[in-house]
Amino acid sequence: MNKIEHIGIAVKNLETSNELFSKLFGSPSYKTETVESEGVKTSFFKLGNNKIELLEAINEDSPIAKFINTKGEGIHHIAFDVDDMEIEIKRLTTEGFVVLNEKPKKGADNKLVVFLHPKTTNGVLIELCQEICLKE
Amino acid sequence: MNKIEHIGIAVKNLETSNELFSKLFGSPSYKTETVESEGVKTSFFKLGNNKIELLEAINEDSPIAKFINTKGEGIHHIAFDVDDMEIEIKRLTTEGFVVLNEKPKKGADNKLVVFLHPKTTNGVLIELCQEICLKE
Repeated sequence: MNKIEHIGIAVKNLETSNELFSKLFGSPSYKTETVESEGVKTSFFKLGNNKIELLEAINEDSPIAKFINTKGEGIHHIAFDVDDMEIEIKRLTTEGFVVLNEKPKKGADNKLVVFLHPKTTNGVLIELCQEICLKE
Repeated sequence: MNKIEHIGIAVKNLETSNELFSKLFGSPSYKTETVESEGVKTSFFKLGNNKIELLEAINEDSPIAKFINTKGEGIHHIAFDVDDMEIEIKRLTTEGFVVLNEKPKKGADNKLVVFLHPKTTNGVLIELCQEICLKE
């Protein structure tokens, strides 16, 4: 596990929150992207070596819609950058962590992503992400 | 605002969580520190350019005790590194953000810290922190 790749924040309205976080960071979002499979519209901000990802649900089945309905807006997950997802999943499951999706799925920002069950990580939803190489 | 300095995670038992996060990151906590004024025992992990801070309440008046009582264990705050706290506070209050403590206080890890009210930041508790210089 190399570094914090990004922090995911669940928001009700991406447009309003883009404005808010632009003011907070003093610089605007550098890209937006819709991930249909996850039911989210996202936008990204850069801060040094890290990113902040805002997530708005685009339908009621989206995990973000469910999160906001129960907990309200706020920090949704922390994503850590990994070099080799397969090795990392093996290492973590051996250590007792529970992986939510055994098969990595395509997330935003050209990444393969896997989530760890928050019950095994002190209530923190953790995403592992690995850059998808163009050669693959 | 330069970078994510650390992410603060509220935990019930620092010892147990130190073991858990050591397994998660594949490396142990590099220091622990008690901040009496905030009613917390903390421990720090390094991940690339960032830190993860685990926080356990040492009394019932601690903000961490209140957080865990209402929300359970999980991500408590994001801390951003700033060069000049005074300039940053002025900039942010002008933009409409509400500062929880106008006068920066001494936090863990040799930092001056200020919190922004989560009502003005999409439910995210944001800490600004500035390294305390030895000359001051």
